[in-house]
Order: sequence, then structure tokens, then C-alpha cells
Amino acid sequence: MTNLRIPGPTPCADEALQEMSRQMINHRGPEFGAMLQRITAGVKKVFETKNDVFILTTSGTGAMETAVVNFLSPGDRVLVVSIGAFGDRFADIAQTFGADVTKLSFDWGTAADPAKLDQALSEGQGYKAMLVTHNETSTGVTNPLAELAAVGRKHDVLVIVDAVSSLSAVPCRVDAWDLDVVVTGSQKGWMVPPALAMISVSDRAWKAYDAAKMPRYYFDVGKAKKYLETNQTPWTPAISVFFALDVALEIMLAEGLENIFARHERVGKLTREGVKALGLEVLADERFASNTVSAVKVPQGVDGKALVKLMREEYDTVLAGGQASLAGKIFRIGHLGLVTEKDITDCLAALKLALPRVGFAPASV
Amino acid sequence: MTNLRIPGPTPCADEALQEMSRQMINHRGPEFGAMLQRITAGVKKVFETKNDVFILTTSGTGAMETAVVNFLSPGDRVLVVSIGAFGDRFADIAQTFGADVTKLSFDWGTAADPAKLDQALSEGQGYKAMLVTHNETSTGVTNPLAELAAVGRKHDVLVIVDAVSSLSAVPCRVDAWDLDVVVTGSQKGWMVPPALAMISVSDRAWKAYDAAKMPRYYFDVGKAKKYLETNQTPWTPAISVFFALDVALEIMLAEGLENIFARHERVGKLTREGVKALGLEVLADERFASNTVSAVKVPQGVDGKALVKLMREEYDTVLAGGQASLAGKIFRIGHLGLVTEKDITDCLAALKLALPRVGFAPASV
Repeated sequence: MTNLRIPGPTPCADEALQEMSRQMINHRGPEFGAMLQRITAGVKKVFETKNDVFILTTSGTGAMETAVVNFLSPGDRVLVVSIGAFGDRFADIAQTFGADVTKLSFDWGTAADPAKLDQALSEGQGYKAMLVTHNETSTGVTNPLAELAAVGRKHDVLVIVDAVSSLSAVPCRVDAWDLDVVVTGSQKGWMVPPALAMISVSDRAWKAYDAAKMPRYYFDVGKAKKYLETNQTPWTPAISVFFALDVALEIMLAEGLENIFARHERVGKLTREGVKALGLEVLADERFASNTVSAVKVPQGVDGKALVKLMREEYDTVLAGGQASLAGKIFRIGHLGLVTEKDITDCLAALKLALPRVGFAPASV
Repeated sequence: MTNLRIPGPTPCADEALQEMSRQMINHRGPEFGAMLQRITAGVKKVFETKNDVFILTTSGTGAMETAVVNFLSPGDRVLVVSIGAFGDRFADIAQTFGADVTKLSFDWGTAADPAKLDQALSEGQGYKAMLVTHNETSTGVTNPLAELAAVGRKHDVLVIVDAVSSLSAVPCRVDAWDLDVVVTGSQKGWMVPPALAMISVSDRAWKAYDAAKMPRYYFDVGKAKKYLETNQTPWTPAISVFFALDVALEIMLAEGLENIFARHERVGKLTREGVKALGLEVLADERFASNTVSAVKVPQGVDGKALVKLMREEYDTVLAGGQASLAGKIFRIGHLGLVTEKDITDCLAALKLALPRVGFAPASV
């Protein structure tokens, strides 16, 4: 079986995939209503929140847009903390809808520094919100979100979080860390196919919603809230993925959140130690290295694209390349959702065979 | 098996459902790329167009938003032709994003009159676009789109069409009728689950796109065009529904478009004649009655909600209720996509048994 080692879509549980082939039902009928209620309750547990949670039919980027347009007005000052391609995307979205964006960028491969965030929020008065990536999929770095959120709280700005590739795989404790808006996507830690995204909304965020003037229709969380009162979604939902998520949540809650987090910690560490043992270098600062995706530097003399192709074609192992300024410079190994130690050791074994075939001559292995 | 007779999500072909349970693949890899290319070509055939066609991960309402925000600027004068709830929704979306909307409304149950459209476009100078529903799902009426589009063409406005519940089931000839922007959704005539929407964009619409200033990010068709050049989608797509659509298109093209249209004409007529034979009345003006969905008036003395509940609970037949001002006044029978004469005769037989149980006493049957 193919070893799908990209940071999403991730492999799905067999039980979830089986549900995908169920026949359609009425999305305005009682069966869907009961399922939506059950799933929403389960998703809240994984978000570790009492806040409102909604499930949208869209990808992670649509969820990021949802997190922006519902809570801000054109002209609002917004600080975007960016440590990679997805932080930059958050800034682009906010700018597109008219926010007055200041970007606080950190070198790709490093995490955001809470002290620098504190300084930026102190210097630039009048910020309405900070947008921050929890886990930067493009660089394999996990931000110290609890600390960053505390700084945001101190400055009384809305804390809006892209947790697409973190939540449900590594701790993202919405209530404990007092996060206002948090979004994630079904094809990451949730072990189901893409098409659904989840968003949590705090009371503070609802107040901002009431005043926010950016235009929104499909992504309007107010409409989602109104329809959820009758156990419906405002628009036709991706029913099949709901079927799958229903059983995936059972699996997740049976394993237990803390066990899931511990498993991701183990496979993350195993991946990083494994690639180092092969003579390769991880891009991320080890203190903030992600337990859901590892970015590995393409070694001198190796064609990164050729490596990814060889791994796919001859070792049935699918890796991801680099994005934006990292294209060709890194490859990425996804290890979130349905992932075991064996998936990683298999991947490492394949890498060990493939690397010399694309010109890799390690200094000392 | 449940007789799912709502106007979407519609029953899916078994072959399509089987594909839904396939394991995930890399959406940036060659297998997905080849499939996207193949599906886009197939969708173009069904749209009967040489225009660009894109497949978005969203529901029909997201596609309607896409049709608005890519081609208009805030302040643009727009005429919205509304014959029901979905025409009103098109107006709401345009207004939300800042268009200067004039609504040309017709009584629910009737179609739009091309002469009145001509008059409205003559009187109100400076219209940039007309938005029109092809098939109004809330009333079971199909607009004379070819004629309406010709009027729009004459006045040199962009013709933007919601064909969510028509295209692929009844003729919606994008090139022959010279339609600029047309949207539809996977859960209607295409016989696959919800999560995907399709949009076609004419050269004229691309010119409007270049000047359009409404904000868009997730729904930006320019991004979709750029990514399609490398056989990708800008954001993570609903891969499973792509798998299903791949085989559904094979089934559709094997049946042949004109045969599909003829089948829908037969089942549409069968439905209308059947409900009339039961002593019920169809809401739609017969000349414009839809061949994808029939709205049936709830007869005097009958509780419409109780009828729909009884049909579901005891006859395993799922009907839709009325929307907006028609709630409680009509019920709707969907007959699009995977539908045969037998589905309709079964539904009518169940109705015949259920109606007297909810207080129906026909004048003469």
C-alpha cells in the first residue's frame, strides 16, 4: 500500500472510508440533524472548547477566509505573525478583504518570538486582531501558541489562529489558551478526506462579529449559528465526509486526545532522528520542530524533485516538495492523523535506498 | 431502498459511491493531475462549452458567490431576475458584496418574461450584469434561459447564470446561448455527493474579471486558472468526490446528453401528470414547469409537514418541503440525476396511500 507521507490529505481510516460510500440522505432531515449534533459535540471535545463550533464545507484556505471576514472590517489594523507560506497566506487574505495588515515575519524554519510579538503590539497602537499560524506546514515548525496567545490577550487583540495542520494531532487547547477564533481542516489530523473545515468562535469574537463589516455570505458564521439551532447547515454540506467524520471521531475519542498527542510526539521525534541518522538536516529549529510535518533540507548535489519522484515511482512513498521560496530546497514528510511508527520507519528505509540513487554522498553515515 | 426524492443531494450511482471509499492521494501529484484534466474535459462537454471551466470545493451557494465576486465591483449596477428563493439569494449575495442591485421579480410559480427583462434593461441604464436563475428549485420553474440571455446580450450586459439544479439534467447550452458565467453543483444532476461546484467563464467574463474589484480569495477564479495550467487546484480539493465524478461522467457521456435531457423530460411529465391524477395541483405554470423538480400545492385541509413526515417514516420516500414564503404551502418532488420512471411511479403510489391518512379528500379522483 502506498505510504502517503504528505501533510494532508492524510491517509484515512478504513472504517471512515467505508462510510464514504454510503448513499445520500436529506441534509434537512432528522438523520443528518442527529449526526450533525453528534459530530459538533465531538469536534468541540477535540477543540477542548465550550465555544461555538461550526463545520463548513470548504478547504483549509476557505476556513482561513472565514476566520478573517467574520470578525474584521476594512481598514482594521491587523498584525499577522508569519513564519512561512501559510502565515503569508493569512496576511494575503486579510489584505484582500481590506484589512490594514502589518506583517511580523520570522525566518523560515524558526518560530515566532513572543517578546518580539509583545514589542510589535506595543509599538503599533490600535491593533484589532492578531492572525497567527499554529503549525506552519511549509517549514515544519510549531509556534509556541499558548505564549503568543497570552501576549495577544495582554494587548486585548482578537487571537485568530490557523490550526489547520495542528489541531487534533498536537495540543491546541482553545479554552485553556483563550483563543478567539480557531480553524482546522478534515484532511489533516482528523483522518477523513478533504471538504470539511471546522471553526470555533469565542464570545469575544461574536462581539467582533456584530461590528465587523467585511462582506461574507457563504462563509458567514452567523448563518451557520442560526441553522445549527435546527441541526442544519445553511448550505448543502459534504454529507459523505460527515459520515466519515462521524466514525473517525469515535476512533479518535476512543484513543483519547492525550494519547493522540503522545503518538504524534513519538512519530515526530522518530522522523527527525531518522533523517538525521541518514545524514540529512531538518529545517526547523529543534525546539519548535513540528510533530505533524518535517521539512528536510535537500542535501548538496541532490535534485530534490528527482528524489520525490523516485520515492513515489519506485518506493511507493509519497513525499511533499517545498513551497514558495523553499521549492527545490526541502522535501517534507507528513506524519499526522493516521500514522504509526512503522509508517515512518518504512519511509526512512525507502529514503535510505533512494538517496544514493539521486546523488547523495553523506559526509559520514 | 429509500426513495430519495428531494432536489439534491440526489441519489448517487453505485459505481460513483464505490469510488468514494478510495484511499487519499496527493492532490499535487500526477494521478490527481491526470484525473483533474480528464474531469475538466468531461465537464466542458456537459456544459457544451469551449469556455474555461473550473471545479471548486464548495456547495452551490459558494458557486453563486464565485459567480458574483469575480466579475463585479462594489457599486456596479446589477439586475437580478428573481422567480423564487434562489433568485432572491443571488440578489442577497450581490448586495452583500456591494453591488447596486435592482430586482426584477416575478410571481413565485411563474417564469421570467423576456419582454419585461428587455424593458427593465432599457429603462435602467448602465447595468453591468444580469443575474438569473435557470431552474428555480424553490418553485419548480425553469426559466426560458435562451430568450432571457439573448435579451441580456442585446443590452450588452454580462449574463451570469445559476444553473445549479438544471445543468447536466436539462439543456443549458452555454456556448449556443452565449452565457458568460454559469455555475452548477455536483449533488444535483451529476449523480455524485455534494462538495464540488463547477463554473464556466467566457472571454467577456474574463475581461470583466480583470476590472472587477469585489474582494475574493478562496473563490478567485484567476487562481483556479493559474493552477489548472499545472493540473492542480489552488486549494486542497474534495478528492473523493472527484473520484466519484470521474466515473459519473463516464456514465453520463455513455448515456449521452440528449438522452439524459429526454429522460428528464419524461420523468418530469410523468410526475406532473401523476400528481394531477391524484387530484393535486402543480405550482408551476405548465409551460415552464421544471423537469428536475416539481412543487406541488399542499391541498386544503392537509398538513404538509405531516405528509412529508408520514411519507418518510412509513413509505421510505423522502420529499422536500417548501422554502421561505412557500413553507407549509407546497411539497417538492425531486427528479433529477439518477432517476427513472419507476422512482416516480413508486413515489406516486406512496403518495396515493399517504394522502388520505393526512386528511386529503379529493374533489374527484
